[in-house]
Amino acid sequence: MNVFRKAEDMQAYSLKKRKEGKSIGFVPTMGYLHEGHIHLIRKARQTDDIVVLSIFVNPLQFGPSEDFERYPRDEKRDLEMAEQEKVDAVFIPDTKEMYPGPMSIQLTVRDRTDVLCGKSREGHFDGVATVLTKLFHLTQPNRAYFGLKDAQQVAVVDALIHDLNFPIELVPVPTVREEDGLAKSSRNVYLNGEERKQAPYLFKALEHGRFLVRNGVNNRETIINEVRNFIKEHTHGKIDYVDLLTYPELKPLDEIDERVILAAAVYFDNARLIDNLIFHPDGELTYDLK
Amino acid sequence: MNVFRKAEDMQAYSLKKRKEGKSIGFVPTMGYLHEGHIHLIRKARQTDDIVVLSIFVNPLQFGPSEDFERYPRDEKRDLEMAEQEKVDAVFIPDTKEMYPGPMSIQLTVRDRTDVLCGKSREGHFDGVATVLTKLFHLTQPNRAYFGLKDAQQVAVVDALIHDLNFPIELVPVPTVREEDGLAKSSRNVYLNGEERKQAPYLFKALEHGRFLVRNGVNNRETIINEVRNFIKEHTHGKIDYVDLLTYPELKPLDEIDERVILAAAVYFDNARLIDNLIFHPDGELTYDLK
Repeated sequence: MNVFRKAEDMQAYSLKKRKEGKSIGFVPTMGYLHEGHIHLIRKARQTDDIVVLSIFVNPLQFGPSEDFERYPRDEKRDLEMAEQEKVDAVFIPDTKEMYPGPMSIQLTVRDRTDVLCGKSREGHFDGVATVLTKLFHLTQPNRAYFGLKDAQQVAVVDALIHDLNFPIELVPVPTVREEDGLAKSSRNVYLNGEERKQAPYLFKALEHGRFLVRNGVNNRETIINEVRNFIKEHTHGKIDYVDLLTYPELKPLDEIDERVILAAAVYFDNARLIDNLIFHPDGELTYDLK
Repeated sequence: MNVFRKAEDMQAYSLKKRKEGKSIGFVPTMGYLHEGHIHLIRKARQTDDIVVLSIFVNPLQFGPSEDFERYPRDEKRDLEMAEQEKVDAVFIPDTKEMYPGPMSIQLTVRDRTDVLCGKSREGHFDGVATVLTKLFHLTQPNRAYFGLKDAQQVAVVDALIHDLNFPIELVPVPTVREEDGLAKSSRNVYLNGEERKQAPYLFKALEHGRFLVRNGVNNRETIINEVRNFIKEHTHGKIDYVDLLTYPELKPLDEIDERVILAAAVYFDNARLIDNLIFHPDGELTYDLK
Protein backbone atom coordinates (compact mmCIF):
# COMPACT_ATOMS: atom_id res chain seq x y z
CA MET A 1 0.00 0.00 0.00
CA ASN A 2 1.30 3.44 -0.96
CA VAL A 3 1.19 6.06 1.79
CA PHE A 4 1.61 9.60 0.49
CA ARG A 5 2.13 12.60 2.74
CA LYS A 6 3.04 15.07 0.00
CA ALA A 7 0.45 16.52 -2.38
CA GLU A 8 2.91 16.33 -5.24
CA ASP A 9 3.53 12.59 -4.73
CA MET A 10 -0.19 11.83 -4.47
CA GLN A 11 -0.91 13.72 -7.69
CA ALA A 12 1.98 12.12 -9.60
CA TYR A 13 0.69 8.65 -8.60
CA SER A 14 -2.89 9.44 -9.66
CA LEU A 15 -1.90 10.95 -13.00
CA LYS A 16 0.30 7.93 -13.70
CA LYS A 17 -2.53 5.48 -12.96
CA ARG A 18 -4.97 7.43 -15.13
CA LYS A 19 -2.42 7.47 -17.95
CA GLU A 20 -2.15 3.69 -17.61
CA GLY A 21 -5.89 3.55 -18.24
CA LYS A 22 -6.77 2.60 -14.67
CA SER A 23 -9.96 3.95 -13.10
CA ILE A 24 -9.61 5.59 -9.69
CA GLY A 25 -12.19 5.37 -6.92
CA PHE A 26 -11.72 7.99 -4.22
CA VAL A 27 -12.91 7.81 -0.60
CA PRO A 28 -12.27 11.08 1.27
CA THR A 29 -12.34 10.76 5.07
CA MET A 30 -11.27 12.55 8.23
CA GLY A 31 -9.86 9.28 9.54
CA TYR A 32 -10.76 7.34 12.70
CA LEU A 33 -12.20 4.82 10.31
CA HIS A 34 -15.28 2.78 11.16
CA GLU A 35 -17.48 0.35 9.28
CA GLY A 36 -19.15 3.19 7.40
CA HIS A 37 -15.83 4.08 5.80
CA ILE A 38 -14.98 0.43 5.17
CA HIS A 39 -18.29 0.14 3.36
CA LEU A 40 -17.31 3.05 1.09
CA ILE A 41 -13.91 1.47 0.43
CA ARG A 42 -15.52 -1.85 -0.50
CA LYS A 43 -17.95 -0.10 -2.85
CA ALA A 44 -15.00 1.58 -4.57
CA ARG A 45 -13.10 -1.73 -4.64
CA GLN A 46 -16.04 -3.34 -6.48
CA THR A 47 -16.04 -0.76 -9.27
CA ASP A 48 -12.63 0.85 -9.67
CA ASP A 49 -9.17 -0.48 -10.50
CA ILE A 50 -7.44 1.72 -7.97
CA VAL A 51 -8.81 2.78 -4.58
CA VAL A 52 -7.43 5.98 -3.06
CA LEU A 53 -8.31 6.88 0.53
CA SER A 54 -7.59 10.28 2.01
CA ILE A 55 -7.28 10.93 5.74
CA PHE A 56 -7.31 14.60 6.58
CA VAL A 57 -9.03 16.44 9.41
CA ASN A 58 -9.79 19.63 7.49
CA PRO A 59 -9.58 22.70 9.76
CA LEU A 60 -11.50 24.80 7.19
CA GLN A 61 -14.73 22.92 7.80
CA PHE A 62 -14.73 23.34 11.59
CA GLY A 63 -16.17 26.46 13.19
CA PRO A 64 -14.19 28.27 15.93
CA SER A 65 -16.32 26.67 18.65
CA GLU A 66 -16.31 23.20 17.09
CA ASP A 67 -14.28 20.09 17.88
CA PHE A 68 -11.32 20.34 15.47
CA GLU A 69 -8.66 19.81 18.15
CA ARG A 70 -10.71 17.18 19.92
CA TYR A 71 -11.71 15.29 16.74
CA PRO A 72 -10.57 11.66 17.25
CA ARG A 73 -7.43 10.56 15.40
CA ASP A 74 -5.71 7.17 15.19
CA GLU A 75 -3.37 7.07 12.23
CA LYS A 76 -1.77 3.71 12.99
CA ARG A 77 -5.09 1.91 13.25
CA ASP A 78 -6.46 3.72 10.16
CA LEU A 79 -3.51 2.62 8.06
CA GLU A 80 -3.84 -0.97 9.27
CA MET A 81 -7.53 -1.00 8.35
CA ALA A 82 -6.80 0.51 4.94
CA GLU A 83 -4.11 -2.10 4.31
CA GLN A 84 -6.51 -4.86 5.30
CA GLU A 85 -9.08 -3.54 2.81
CA LYS A 86 -6.44 -3.57 0.06
CA VAL A 87 -6.56 0.18 -0.46
CA ASP A 88 -3.98 1.04 -3.13
CA ALA A 89 -2.96 4.45 -1.88
CA VAL A 90 -3.59 6.49 1.26
CA PHE A 91 -3.14 10.26 1.16
CA ILE A 92 -2.48 11.54 4.66
CA PRO A 93 -1.14 15.10 4.50
CA ASP A 94 -0.64 17.46 7.43
CA THR A 95 -2.39 20.83 7.56
CA LYS A 96 0.61 22.72 6.21
CA GLU A 97 0.80 20.45 3.17
CA MET A 98 -2.83 21.21 2.29
CA TYR A 99 -2.75 24.89 3.28
CA PRO A 100 0.86 26.10 2.95
CA GLY A 101 -0.19 29.74 3.25
CA PRO A 102 -3.20 32.05 3.11
CA MET A 103 -5.35 31.20 0.11
CA SER A 104 -6.07 33.77 -2.59
CA ILE A 105 -8.96 31.71 -3.94
CA GLN A 106 -12.09 31.24 -1.86
CA LEU A 107 -14.93 28.81 -2.56
CA THR A 108 -18.37 29.61 -1.25
CA VAL A 109 -21.42 27.38 -1.36
CA ARG A 110 -24.40 29.68 -1.84
CA ASP A 111 -27.17 27.14 -2.11
CA ARG A 112 -28.26 23.97 -0.27
CA THR A 113 -26.47 25.25 2.87
CA ASP A 114 -28.89 27.49 4.77
CA VAL A 115 -30.83 24.49 6.07
CA LEU A 116 -30.13 21.37 8.17
CA CYS A 117 -26.53 21.26 9.45
CA GLY A 118 -25.46 24.23 7.33
CA LYS A 119 -27.74 26.50 9.36
CA SER A 120 -25.77 26.09 12.57
CA ARG A 121 -22.37 25.48 10.92
CA GLU A 122 -21.58 28.71 9.08
CA GLY A 123 -18.81 28.26 6.54
CA HIS A 124 -18.71 24.49 7.09
CA PHE A 125 -19.63 23.59 3.52
CA ASP A 126 -17.31 26.28 2.12
CA GLY A 127 -14.52 24.39 3.87
CA VAL A 128 -15.82 21.07 2.54
CA ALA A 129 -16.03 22.39 -1.05
CA THR A 130 -12.51 23.84 -0.82
CA VAL A 131 -10.81 20.73 0.52
CA LEU A 132 -12.68 18.47 -1.91
CA THR A 133 -11.70 20.61 -4.89
CA LYS A 134 -8.07 20.27 -3.80
CA LEU A 135 -8.39 16.55 -3.08
CA PHE A 136 -10.15 15.88 -6.39
CA HIS A 137 -7.27 17.55 -8.21
CA LEU A 138 -4.72 15.55 -6.23
CA THR A 139 -6.41 12.14 -6.52
CA GLN A 140 -7.93 12.48 -10.04
CA PRO A 141 -10.86 10.15 -9.38
CA ASN A 142 -13.27 8.71 -11.92
CA ARG A 143 -15.68 8.14 -9.04
CA ALA A 144 -15.93 9.65 -5.54
CA TYR A 145 -17.75 7.75 -2.80
CA PHE A 146 -19.67 9.56 -0.07
CA GLY A 147 -21.81 8.23 2.74
CA LEU A 148 -25.43 9.37 2.76
CA LYS A 149 -25.29 9.84 6.52
CA ASP A 150 -24.16 13.33 5.69
CA ALA A 151 -26.79 13.76 2.96
CA GLN A 152 -26.39 17.51 2.88
CA GLN A 153 -22.70 17.04 2.10
CA VAL A 154 -23.70 14.71 -0.75
CA ALA A 155 -26.06 17.42 -2.05
CA VAL A 156 -23.27 20.00 -1.89
CA VAL A 157 -20.77 17.70 -3.63
CA ASP A 158 -23.40 17.10 -6.32
CA ALA A 159 -23.60 20.88 -6.85
CA LEU A 160 -19.80 21.24 -6.76
CA ILE A 161 -19.27 18.57 -9.40
CA HIS A 162 -21.98 19.89 -11.72
CA ASP A 163 -21.31 23.61 -11.33
CA LEU A 164 -17.57 23.28 -11.90
CA ASN A 165 -17.73 20.43 -14.47
CA PHE A 166 -15.52 18.00 -12.56
CA PRO A 167 -15.19 14.80 -14.65
CA ILE A 168 -16.22 12.76 -11.62
CA GLU A 169 -19.16 10.48 -10.89
CA LEU A 170 -20.56 11.01 -7.40
CA VAL A 171 -21.52 7.68 -5.82
CA PRO A 172 -23.77 8.12 -2.76
CA VAL A 173 -23.57 5.12 -0.42
CA PRO A 174 -26.35 4.20 2.06
CA THR A 175 -25.70 4.80 5.76
CA VAL A 176 -24.28 1.86 7.69
CA ARG A 177 -26.04 1.25 10.99
CA GLU A 178 -25.48 -0.60 14.25
CA GLU A 179 -27.84 -3.51 14.90
CA ASP A 180 -30.14 -1.23 16.88
CA GLY A 181 -30.34 1.27 14.00
CA LEU A 182 -27.85 3.91 15.21
CA ALA A 183 -25.91 5.33 12.25
CA LYS A 184 -22.18 4.59 12.46
CA SER A 185 -20.15 7.70 13.27
CA SER A 186 -16.71 8.55 14.60
CA ARG A 187 -18.45 10.73 17.14
CA ASN A 188 -20.43 7.83 18.67
CA VAL A 189 -17.46 7.16 20.99
CA TYR A 190 -18.38 10.36 22.87
CA LEU A 191 -21.75 8.97 23.99
CA ASN A 192 -22.04 7.81 27.62
CA GLY A 193 -23.85 4.58 28.46
CA GLU A 194 -27.30 6.09 28.90
CA GLU A 195 -26.95 8.25 25.77
CA ARG A 196 -25.87 5.24 23.75
CA LYS A 197 -29.13 3.55 24.70
CA GLN A 198 -31.17 6.59 23.66
CA ALA A 199 -29.26 7.34 20.42
CA PRO A 200 -31.01 4.73 18.22
CA TYR A 201 -34.29 6.59 18.79
CA LEU A 202 -33.04 9.23 16.40
CA PHE A 203 -33.28 6.66 13.59
CA LYS A 204 -36.51 5.24 14.99
CA ALA A 205 -38.05 8.72 15.00
CA LEU A 206 -37.20 9.18 11.31
CA GLU A 207 -38.61 5.75 10.54
CA HIS A 208 -41.76 6.79 12.40
CA GLY A 209 -41.99 9.86 10.12
CA ARG A 210 -41.51 7.74 7.04
CA PHE A 211 -44.16 5.31 8.34
CA LEU A 212 -46.62 8.22 8.47
CA VAL A 213 -45.85 9.16 4.85
CA ARG A 214 -46.22 5.56 3.77
CA ASN A 215 -49.65 5.64 5.40
CA GLY A 216 -50.85 8.71 3.56
CA VAL A 217 -49.80 11.64 5.75
CA ASN A 218 -48.21 14.14 3.39
CA ASN A 219 -48.22 17.40 5.30
CA ARG A 220 -44.71 18.60 6.08
CA GLU A 221 -45.47 20.29 9.41
CA THR A 222 -47.35 17.28 10.76
CA ILE A 223 -44.53 14.92 10.02
CA ILE A 224 -41.84 17.23 11.44
CA ASN A 225 -43.85 17.67 14.66
CA GLU A 226 -44.45 13.94 15.03
CA VAL A 227 -40.72 13.24 14.63
CA ARG A 228 -39.80 15.97 17.14
CA ASN A 229 -42.22 14.60 19.71
CA PHE A 230 -40.90 11.08 19.18
CA ILE A 231 -37.32 12.22 19.84
CA LYS A 232 -38.33 14.22 22.92
CA GLU A 233 -40.25 11.27 24.29
CA HIS A 234 -37.40 8.76 23.97
CA THR A 235 -34.20 10.80 24.55
CA HIS A 236 -32.99 13.63 26.75
CA GLY A 237 -31.00 15.01 23.78
CA LYS A 238 -31.57 18.60 22.70
CA ILE A 239 -33.00 18.79 19.19
CA ASP A 240 -30.95 20.98 16.84
CA TYR A 241 -33.34 20.48 13.94
CA VAL A 242 -35.86 18.14 12.38
CA ASP A 243 -36.65 19.01 8.79
CA LEU A 244 -38.23 17.66 5.65
CA LEU A 245 -37.00 19.02 2.31
CA THR A 246 -36.71 18.13 -1.36
CA TYR A 247 -33.56 16.18 -2.22
CA PRO A 248 -30.91 17.04 -3.36
CA GLU A 249 -32.12 20.65 -3.83
CA LEU A 250 -33.01 20.97 -0.11
CA LYS A 251 -36.02 23.24 -0.66
CA PRO A 252 -39.06 23.23 1.66
CA LEU A 253 -42.32 21.89 0.28
CA ASP A 254 -45.85 21.92 1.71
CA GLU A 255 -46.99 18.54 0.54
CA ILE A 256 -44.77 15.61 -0.25
CA ASP A 257 -45.04 15.12 -4.01
CA GLU A 258 -41.40 14.45 -4.92
CA ARG A 259 -38.29 12.83 -3.47
CA VAL A 260 -37.56 14.19 0.01
CA ILE A 261 -35.11 13.98 2.85
CA LEU A 262 -36.31 13.68 6.44
CA ALA A 263 -33.36 14.66 8.61
CA ALA A 264 -32.61 15.36 12.25
CA ALA A 265 -29.73 16.48 14.46
CA VAL A 266 -29.67 16.04 18.23
CA TYR A 267 -27.19 17.29 20.81
CA PHE A 268 -26.15 14.88 23.52
CA ASP A 269 -23.73 15.96 26.27
CA ASN A 270 -20.52 15.44 24.29
CA ALA A 271 -21.71 14.66 20.79
CA ARG A 272 -24.07 16.00 18.18
CA LEU A 273 -25.64 13.14 16.20
CA ILE A 274 -27.23 13.41 12.76
CA ASP A 275 -29.30 11.01 10.73
CA ASN A 276 -31.65 11.07 7.75
CA LEU A 277 -33.81 9.08 5.40
CA ILE A 278 -34.35 9.85 1.72
CA PHE A 279 -37.56 8.57 0.18
CA HIS A 280 -40.17 8.97 -2.53
CA PRO A 281 -43.75 10.26 -1.90
CA ASP A 282 -44.88 6.66 -1.36
CA GLY A 283 -42.34 6.26 1.45
CA GLU A 284 -40.01 4.04 -0.59
CA LEU A 285 -36.35 4.60 0.41
CA THR A 286 -33.90 5.70 -2.30
CA TYR A 287 -30.14 6.22 -2.48
CA ASP A 288 -30.00 7.71 -5.92
CA LEU A 289 -29.46 11.30 -6.97
CA LYS A 290 -30.97 10.99 -10.43
CA MET B 1 -10.39 19.89 -36.65
CA ASN B 2 -12.93 18.96 -33.99
CA VAL B 3 -15.43 21.66 -33.09
CA PHE B 4 -17.28 20.99 -29.83
CA ARG B 5 -20.25 23.00 -28.66
CA LYS B 6 -21.26 20.71 -25.79
CA ALA B 7 -19.29 20.56 -22.54
CA GLU B 8 -19.81 16.81 -22.34
CA ASP B 9 -18.29 16.23 -25.80
CA MET B 10 -15.30 18.44 -25.09
CA GLN B 11 -14.60 16.61 -21.83
CA ALA B 12 -15.00 13.16 -23.36
CA TYR B 13 -12.48 14.09 -26.08
CA SER B 14 -9.95 15.45 -23.57
CA LEU B 15 -10.21 12.47 -21.24
CA LYS B 16 -9.76 10.12 -24.19
CA LYS B 17 -6.63 11.94 -25.38
CA ARG B 18 -5.15 11.95 -21.89
CA LYS B 19 -5.87 8.24 -21.55
CA GLU B 20 -4.03 7.70 -24.85
CA GLY B 21 -1.02 9.32 -23.20
CA LYS B 22 -1.25 12.54 -25.23
CA SER B 23 -0.37 15.86 -23.63
CA ILE B 24 -2.91 18.65 -24.01
CA GLY B 25 -2.02 22.32 -24.43
CA PHE B 26 -4.94 24.66 -23.76
CA VAL B 27 -5.41 28.18 -25.06
CA PRO B 28 -8.49 29.88 -23.56
CA THR B 29 -9.76 32.90 -25.51
CA MET B 30 -12.80 35.11 -25.94
CA GLY B 31 -12.44 34.78 -29.71
CA TYR B 32 -11.94 37.49 -32.33
CA LEU B 33 -8.50 35.97 -32.70
CA HIS B 34 -5.46 38.09 -33.50
CA GLU B 35 -1.73 37.44 -33.74
CA GLY B 36 -1.45 37.41 -29.95
CA HIS B 37 -3.70 34.35 -29.83
CA ILE B 38 -1.95 32.75 -32.79
CA HIS B 39 1.31 33.16 -30.91
CA LEU B 40 -0.19 31.28 -27.92
CA ILE B 41 -1.45 28.52 -30.21
CA ARG B 42 1.98 28.13 -31.80
CA LYS B 43 3.65 27.96 -28.40
CA ALA B 44 1.24 25.18 -27.43
CA ARG B 45 1.82 23.45 -30.77
CA GLN B 46 5.59 23.40 -30.07
CA THR B 47 5.20 21.62 -26.74
CA ASP B 48 2.00 19.60 -26.62
CA ASP B 49 0.59 16.71 -28.65
CA ILE B 50 -2.91 18.12 -28.74
CA VAL B 51 -3.88 21.80 -28.89
CA VAL B 52 -7.30 22.76 -27.57
CA LEU B 53 -8.60 26.28 -28.13
CA SER B 54 -11.67 27.63 -26.37
CA ILE B 55 -13.74 30.53 -27.67
CA PHE B 56 -16.17 31.85 -25.09
CA VAL B 57 -17.11 35.42 -24.23
CA ASN B 58 -17.64 34.87 -20.52
CA PRO B 59 -20.44 37.10 -19.18
CA LEU B 60 -19.26 36.50 -15.59
CA GLN B 61 -16.11 38.54 -16.08
CA PHE B 62 -17.85 41.63 -17.48
CA GLY B 63 -19.23 44.29 -15.13
CA PRO B 64 -22.78 45.61 -15.69
CA SER B 65 -21.40 48.75 -17.39
CA GLU B 66 -18.81 46.90 -19.45
CA ASP B 67 -18.80 45.83 -23.09
CA PHE B 68 -20.10 42.24 -22.97
CA GLU B 69 -22.76 42.74 -25.65
CA ARG B 70 -20.48 44.90 -27.75
CA TYR B 71 -17.42 42.63 -27.44
CA PRO B 72 -16.34 41.76 -31.01
CA ARG B 73 -17.24 38.27 -32.28
CA ASP B 74 -16.43 36.52 -35.58
CA GLU B 75 -16.90 32.80 -35.23
CA LYS B 76 -16.37 31.91 -38.89
CA ARG B 77 -13.06 33.73 -39.13
CA ASP B 78 -11.92 32.37 -35.76
CA LEU B 79 -12.56 28.78 -36.84
CA GLU B 80 -10.73 29.34 -40.12
CA MET B 81 -7.72 30.73 -38.29
CA ALA B 82 -7.77 27.84 -35.81
CA GLU B 83 -7.93 25.35 -38.69
CA GLN B 84 -5.02 27.04 -40.40
CA GLU B 85 -2.97 26.78 -37.20
CA LYS B 86 -3.74 23.05 -37.00
CA VAL B 87 -5.62 23.34 -33.73
CA ASP B 88 -6.91 19.86 -32.82
CA ALA B 89 -10.10 20.87 -31.07
CA VAL B 90 -12.06 24.07 -30.62
CA PHE B 91 -14.51 24.39 -27.74
CA ILE B 92 -17.11 27.02 -28.57
CA PRO B 93 -20.06 26.72 -26.17
CA ASP B 94 -22.90 29.18 -25.81
CA THR B 95 -23.66 30.88 -22.49
CA LYS B 96 -26.36 28.38 -21.55
CA GLU B 97 -23.99 25.47 -22.06
CA MET B 98 -21.49 26.96 -19.62
CA TYR B 99 -24.05 28.35 -17.16
CA PRO B 100 -27.20 26.22 -17.48
CA GLY B 101 -28.66 27.70 -14.29
CA PRO B 102 -27.79 29.72 -11.19
CA MET B 103 -24.56 28.41 -9.65
CA SER B 104 -24.46 27.10 -6.10
CA ILE B 105 -20.68 27.34 -5.99
CA GLN B 106 -18.99 30.73 -6.08
CA LEU B 107 -15.28 31.38 -6.59
CA THR B 108 -13.80 34.55 -5.19
CA VAL B 109 -10.27 35.83 -5.72
CA ARG B 110 -9.26 37.56 -2.50
CA ASP B 111 -5.71 38.51 -3.33
CA ARG B 112 -3.84 40.08 -6.27
CA THR B 113 -7.10 41.76 -7.38
CA ASP B 114 -7.41 45.06 -5.48
CA VAL B 115 -4.80 46.71 -7.73
CA LEU B 116 -4.35 47.46 -11.46
CA CYS B 117 -7.37 46.36 -13.53
CA GLY B 118 -8.98 44.58 -10.59
CA LYS B 119 -9.46 47.89 -8.81
CA SER B 120 -11.91 49.25 -11.37
CA ARG B 121 -13.34 45.87 -12.44
CA GLU B 122 -15.03 44.51 -9.35
CA GLY B 123 -15.76 40.80 -9.63
CA HIS B 124 -13.89 40.53 -12.94
CA PHE B 125 -11.31 38.07 -11.67
CA ASP B 126 -13.96 36.06 -9.80
CA GLY B 127 -15.55 35.52 -13.21
CA VAL B 128 -12.20 34.65 -14.74
CA ALA B 129 -11.39 32.13 -11.98
CA THR B 130 -14.83 30.54 -12.30
CA VAL B 131 -14.79 30.08 -16.05
CA LEU B 132 -11.19 28.85 -16.04
CA THR B 133 -11.95 26.27 -13.36
CA LYS B 134 -14.78 24.98 -15.55
CA LEU B 135 -12.70 25.11 -18.73
CA PHE B 136 -9.74 23.37 -17.07
CA HIS B 137 -12.06 20.53 -16.03
CA LEU B 138 -13.50 20.30 -19.53
CA THR B 139 -10.22 20.45 -21.46
CA GLN B 140 -7.95 18.57 -19.00
CA PRO B 141 -4.77 20.40 -20.02
CA ASN B 142 -1.21 19.52 -19.07
CA ARG B 143 -0.29 23.11 -19.88
CA ALA B 144 -2.35 26.30 -20.17
CA TYR B 145 -1.04 29.22 -22.22
CA PHE B 146 -1.78 32.81 -21.26
CA GLY B 147 -0.59 36.07 -22.76
CA LEU B 148 1.32 38.36 -20.44
CA LYS B 149 -0.52 41.38 -21.82
CA ASP B 150 -3.02 40.65 -19.08
CA ALA B 151 -0.31 40.08 -16.49
CA GLN B 152 -2.73 40.40 -13.60
CA GLN B 153 -4.78 37.59 -15.08
CA VAL B 154 -1.60 35.48 -15.25
CA ALA B 155 -0.94 36.27 -11.56
CA VAL B 156 -4.51 35.23 -10.66
CA VAL B 157 -4.28 32.01 -12.70
CA ASP B 158 -0.99 31.27 -10.92
CA ALA B 159 -2.81 31.61 -7.57
CA LEU B 160 -5.77 29.54 -8.82
CA ILE B 161 -3.58 26.67 -9.97
CA HIS B 162 -1.48 26.62 -6.79
CA ASP B 163 -4.25 27.17 -4.25
CA LEU B 164 -6.52 24.50 -5.74
CA ASN B 165 -3.75 22.06 -6.77
CA PHE B 166 -4.69 21.90 -10.45
CA PRO B 167 -2.27 19.49 -12.20
CA ILE B 168 -1.54 22.15 -14.81
CA GLU B 169 1.58 24.04 -15.80
CA LEU B 170 0.92 27.72 -16.41
CA VAL B 171 2.88 28.97 -19.43
CA PRO B 172 3.03 32.79 -19.58
CA VAL B 173 3.69 34.03 -23.12
CA PRO B 174 5.23 37.45 -23.90
CA THR B 175 2.96 40.13 -25.36
CA VAL B 176 2.86 40.35 -29.13
CA ARG B 177 3.17 43.91 -30.44
CA GLU B 178 2.55 45.86 -33.62
CA GLU B 179 5.63 47.24 -35.32
CA ASP B 180 5.19 50.54 -33.50
CA GLY B 181 5.04 48.81 -30.10
CA LEU B 182 1.26 48.77 -29.53
CA ALA B 183 0.24 45.54 -27.79
CA LYS B 184 -2.10 43.41 -29.93
CA SER B 185 -5.65 43.40 -28.61
CA SER B 186 -9.14 42.61 -29.87
CA ARG B 187 -10.14 46.04 -28.60
CA ASN B 188 -7.67 47.92 -30.84
CA VAL B 189 -10.35 47.93 -33.59
CA TYR B 190 -12.25 50.50 -31.52
CA LEU B 191 -9.48 53.11 -31.84
CA ASN B 192 -10.04 55.95 -34.29
CA GLY B 193 -7.21 57.14 -36.56
CA GLU B 194 -5.79 59.73 -34.21
CA GLU B 195 -6.04 57.40 -31.19
CA ARG B 196 -4.30 54.65 -33.10
CA LYS B 197 -1.36 56.99 -33.62
CA GLN B 198 -1.24 57.87 -29.92
CA ALA B 199 -1.77 54.34 -28.60
CA PRO B 200 1.87 53.14 -29.00
CA TYR B 201 2.92 55.80 -26.50
CA LEU B 202 1.45 53.62 -23.77
CA PHE B 203 4.21 51.09 -24.47
CA LYS B 204 6.79 53.82 -24.97
CA ALA B 205 5.88 55.32 -21.59
CA LEU B 206 6.47 51.97 -19.88
CA GLU B 207 9.77 51.58 -21.71
CA HIS B 208 10.69 55.06 -20.51
CA GLY B 209 9.99 53.91 -16.92
CA ARG B 210 12.10 50.81 -17.41
CA PHE B 211 14.87 52.96 -18.90
CA LEU B 212 14.90 54.99 -15.67
CA VAL B 213 15.23 51.81 -13.58
CA ARG B 214 18.01 50.55 -15.81
CA ASN B 215 19.79 53.84 -15.15
CA GLY B 216 19.60 53.60 -11.38
CA VAL B 217 16.29 55.24 -10.46
CA ASN B 218 14.66 52.85 -8.02
CA ASN B 219 12.02 54.93 -6.26
CA ARG B 220 8.50 53.74 -7.05
CA GLU B 221 6.77 57.13 -6.90
CA THR B 222 9.32 58.79 -9.18
CA ILE B 223 8.94 56.13 -11.84
CA ILE B 224 5.14 56.14 -11.69
CA ASN B 225 5.04 59.93 -12.03
CA GLU B 226 7.45 59.93 -14.93
CA VAL B 227 5.35 57.36 -16.77
CA ARG B 228 2.12 59.28 -16.09
CA ASN B 229 3.63 62.49 -17.41
CA PHE B 230 4.92 60.71 -20.49
CA ILE B 231 1.44 59.35 -21.28
CA LYS B 232 -0.21 62.75 -20.69
CA GLU B 233 2.33 64.44 -22.93
CA HIS B 234 1.83 62.11 -25.89
CA THR B 235 -1.83 61.07 -25.80
CA HIS B 236 -5.21 62.59 -25.01
CA GLY B 237 -6.25 59.33 -23.34
CA LYS B 238 -7.48 59.40 -19.72
CA ILE B 239 -5.17 57.47 -17.40
CA ASP B 240 -6.97 54.78 -15.38
CA TYR B 241 -3.82 53.77 -13.53
CA VAL B 242 -0.06 53.57 -13.72
CA ASP B 243 1.44 51.31 -11.08
CA LEU B 244 4.59 49.49 -10.13
CA LEU B 245 4.24 46.36 -7.99
CA THR B 246 6.01 43.10 -7.15
CA TYR B 247 5.20 40.28 -9.55
CA PRO B 248 3.25 37.97 -9.38
CA GLU B 249 2.25 38.92 -5.80
CA LEU B 250 1.23 42.45 -6.88
CA LYS B 251 2.30 44.14 -3.64
CA PRO B 252 3.54 47.74 -3.53
CA LEU B 253 7.22 48.30 -2.70
CA ASP B 254 9.15 51.50 -1.94
CA GLU B 255 12.38 50.65 -3.68
CA ILE B 256 12.77 48.21 -6.52
CA ASP B 257 14.76 45.31 -5.10
CA GLU B 258 12.90 42.37 -6.66
CA ARG B 259 11.01 41.44 -9.82
CA VAL B 260 8.34 44.03 -10.59
CA ILE B 261 5.58 44.83 -13.02
CA LEU B 262 5.18 48.35 -14.41
CA ALA B 263 1.65 48.53 -15.78
CA ALA B 264 -0.75 51.11 -17.15
CA ALA B 265 -4.32 51.41 -18.38
CA VAL B 266 -5.60 54.30 -20.48
CA TYR B 267 -9.13 55.13 -21.63
CA PHE B 268 -9.55 56.27 -25.19
CA ASP B 269 -12.99 57.27 -26.50
CA ASN B 270 -14.21 53.74 -27.28
CA ALA B 271 -11.52 51.49 -25.85
CA ARG B 272 -9.56 51.01 -22.66
CA LEU B 273 -6.01 49.86 -23.44
CA ILE B 274 -3.67 48.09 -21.04
CA ASP B 275 -0.01 47.24 -21.23
CA ASN B 276 2.83 46.26 -18.92
CA LEU B 277 6.46 45.29 -18.61
CA ILE B 278 7.86 42.78 -16.11
CA PHE B 279 11.50 43.20 -15.19
CA HIS B 280 14.21 42.63 -12.60
CA PRO B 281 15.77 45.41 -10.45
CA ASP B 282 18.44 45.87 -13.13
CA GLY B 283 15.75 46.58 -15.72
CA GLU B 284 16.17 43.24 -17.49
CA LEU B 285 12.82 42.01 -18.91
CA THR B 286 11.50 38.61 -17.75
CA TYR B 287 8.59 36.37 -18.73
CA ASP B 288 9.02 33.80 -16.05
CA LEU B 289 6.98 33.28 -12.88
CA LYS B 290 9.59 31.32 -10.96
